[in-house]
Amino acid sequence: MPILVMKFGGTSVATLDRIRRAAKRVGREVANGYDVIVIVSAMSGETNKLVGYVEETSPLFDAREYDAVVSSGENVTAGLMALTLQEMDVPARSWQGWQVPLRTTSAHASARIEEIPTGNITAKFAEGMKVAVVAGFQGISPEGRITTLGRGGSDTTAVAFAAAFGAERCDIYTDVDGVYTTDPRITSKARKLDRIAFEEMLELASLGAKVLQTRSVELAMRYNVRLRVLSSFEDNDENAGTLVCSEEDIVESNVVAGVAYSRDEAKMTLVSVADRPGIAAAIFGPLAEAGVNVDMIVQNIAEEGRTDMTFSCPTDQVKRAEKAMTDAQERGEINFHDLVADTDVCKVSIVGIGMRSHAGVAAKMFSTLRDEGINIKVITTSEIKVSVLVDRKYMELAVQSLHDAFGLERAA
Amino acid sequence: MPILVMKFGGTSVATLDRIRRAAKRVGREVANGYDVIVIVSAMSGETNKLVGYVEETSPLFDAREYDAVVSSGENVTAGLMALTLQEMDVPARSWQGWQVPLRTTSAHASARIEEIPTGNITAKFAEGMKVAVVAGFQGISPEGRITTLGRGGSDTTAVAFAAAFGAERCDIYTDVDGVYTTDPRITSKARKLDRIAFEEMLELASLGAKVLQTRSVELAMRYNVRLRVLSSFEDNDENAGTLVCSEEDIVESNVVAGVAYSRDEAKMTLVSVADRPGIAAAIFGPLAEAGVNVDMIVQNIAEEGRTDMTFSCPTDQVKRAEKAMTDAQERGEINFHDLVADTDVCKVSIVGIGMRSHAGVAAKMFSTLRDEGINIKVITTSEIKVSVLVDRKYMELAVQSLHDAFGLERAA
Repeated sequence: MPILVMKFGGTSVATLDRIRRAAKRVGREVANGYDVIVIVSAMSGETNKLVGYVEETSPLFDAREYDAVVSSGENVTAGLMALTLQEMDVPARSWQGWQVPLRTTSAHASARIEEIPTGNITAKFAEGMKVAVVAGFQGISPEGRITTLGRGGSDTTAVAFAAAFGAERCDIYTDVDGVYTTDPRITSKARKLDRIAFEEMLELASLGAKVLQTRSVELAMRYNVRLRVLSSFEDNDENAGTLVCSEEDIVESNVVAGVAYSRDEAKMTLVSVADRPGIAAAIFGPLAEAGVNVDMIVQNIAEEGRTDMTFSCPTDQVKRAEKAMTDAQERGEINFHDLVADTDVCKVSIVGIGMRSHAGVAAKMFSTLRDEGINIKVITTSEIKVSVLVDRKYMELAVQSLHDAFGLERAA
Repeated sequence: MPILVMKFGGTSVATLDRIRRAAKRVGREVANGYDVIVIVSAMSGETNKLVGYVEETSPLFDAREYDAVVSSGENVTAGLMALTLQEMDVPARSWQGWQVPLRTTSAHASARIEEIPTGNITAKFAEGMKVAVVAGFQGISPEGRITTLGRGGSDTTAVAFAAAFGAERCDIYTDVDGVYTTDPRITSKARKLDRIAFEEMLELASLGAKVLQTRSVELAMRYNVRLRVLSSFEDNDENAGTLVCSEEDIVESNVVAGVAYSRDEAKMTLVSVADRPGIAAAIFGPLAEAGVNVDMIVQNIAEEGRTDMTFSCPTDQVKRAEKAMTDAQERGEINFHDLVADTDVCKVSIVGIGMRSHAGVAAKMFSTLRDEGINIKVITTSEIKVSVLVDRKYMELAVQSLHDAFGLERAA
């Protein structure tokens, strides 16, 4: 039998009634001739509640106990999903991470999947079981303790199972009906994409489009898992949702696939740093050690022998970044006149594999923003992405004007 | 280090604040020089919520999935208790049933403990860990699936750990401060017992005093575990609560230790059954097959060749008992004129190991009830117990008058 992986997120299993609706979808795929592996999240709200308990109990918690606590929500929905399927006369049983066993590293709270032995589940399929329901988000460490894969980890569980079992497809059921050219709350012209390339999805995911966990897309790309994002609240036909797939499977596409944004960015500038060989290492070494995730970096030569160094990082890491820099100054490792933090900015990005073969995309982005009177503060580019930092008040305007300028409301 | 087992029930871990208070008690015992094994229930209400989910999903549920779902509440409190202890600088970690592993039979939802290997936890104690927090109520079957031990099963987990580790004592923290001569809600003269013999506690537990799961008392008796029941809401000195112990550890005691009652009893009478050798088997065989828990049995010869057979069973099994009897009548296995169910009765019992050596205890019970004008409908006796069925309206009166008659408000 061909194997299909179906993943249901927290809102899709939030109540017993929604679990029944999800189970009906599973039953239809069984009727279509698939052996199905279902990956479930916890009922929406449950994981947040458990994380709240842990953080209130112990602000600097032991991540091993955190994992033991927060993984329990998925066990509940896995059992309930199996029972619901059984009630519909679909042979099903549940697996918790350690029962598979889904082996991970020991990096508790953000463990990486090492191995998924397929023997146990394959044997049950051979005995006539039609659906294996697996608790998402969790695994077992080499020490035999429960691990979790980080928030959104059930997406990664699903893709890893699809890769391990050679599944025909991995369907991610969620509360949106696919991946859009941009956030529909920002512009009503946002259009659902039928297909998007792994590389594009990876950029969009890491840029703040919260449809899929970034690592799940990486994994899908590495193992070439056909990944479909679709709504658990709508009737879906065969072409519903968005297929995340290889570039080769996309015949025709816009140069720019989507416009992403992130409010969670701060711009920090070290003013008039004494310039010398190795100064970048002296700045970004301590920042990395302090756990600051530096995103964009720009260096301007301000005057002879001195430079301004600007970088961006998540808003909630500003305090940590400031401490790392003043500490480094005190240790005499760097020398700067001032440190200016600007949290009133946002990042707007355009993403598209078509950029590789089209010149002038960045130039068009800059002129579009200029025409709207939006000042660009920092720029970074990659092969398939251009990102800019702008004042936060211009965020909607920037997204809308770029969406218009690149004609994203129409398919290619 | 001597080992102490401390068990905290659902009300004792109902909130993070209560978990902290329980952890403080644990910390004090660590300071007293013990290595402690803590057994925790789920937060009160959690297990009921999960059972509700399962029953709503699947009325005739797969008990394996039931167990996978309802065991999750204990995992949460085990992790939170370990974190709370760590915050108090007490080295602690949590264990789920399968991690110990607490091996059980495959009788899902009411599994029996087969084995508790001590190696994993002992090794951690040797490394300096002071507290092992274990999720109660759950284990692992020979097939590698999660099992549960039945409602109240955490008591049994605690006693089994105390036996396996040769603990000095097993302290059961609950929402009452010990075992009473009778329910204090029935008479204010009810007195807390300092000590009670295993055999007495066993009778009281099975008669409806819900302080301890019956099986936990059986296990404590078999392995001679000193079991203490005490309140998690009061300051306890060394003699707090009630010690459940061997008869030999009780120097002086009343003839009757306690008066128990149960509202959950129905009286059923098969009127004018054709009497013949084997008729009892013909009646109670089908009842057992139908899963009816018959408690008391009385047979009266009504007329030549016919008999009235009266038995009691839990109220919620009346329908099932009626069906079993009418089915047996239809199959021609038994022949009776009528089947009368009386659910307006209750069972009142006196329990005490002193009965063995004192004559006239039953007679005193009967005369006490006669003096109050209470009619006795059925009687059963064991070596250390006399039980009667009476009209439910007399329950309080019967308990109060027996408590007075046997002088239970005063210690021996």
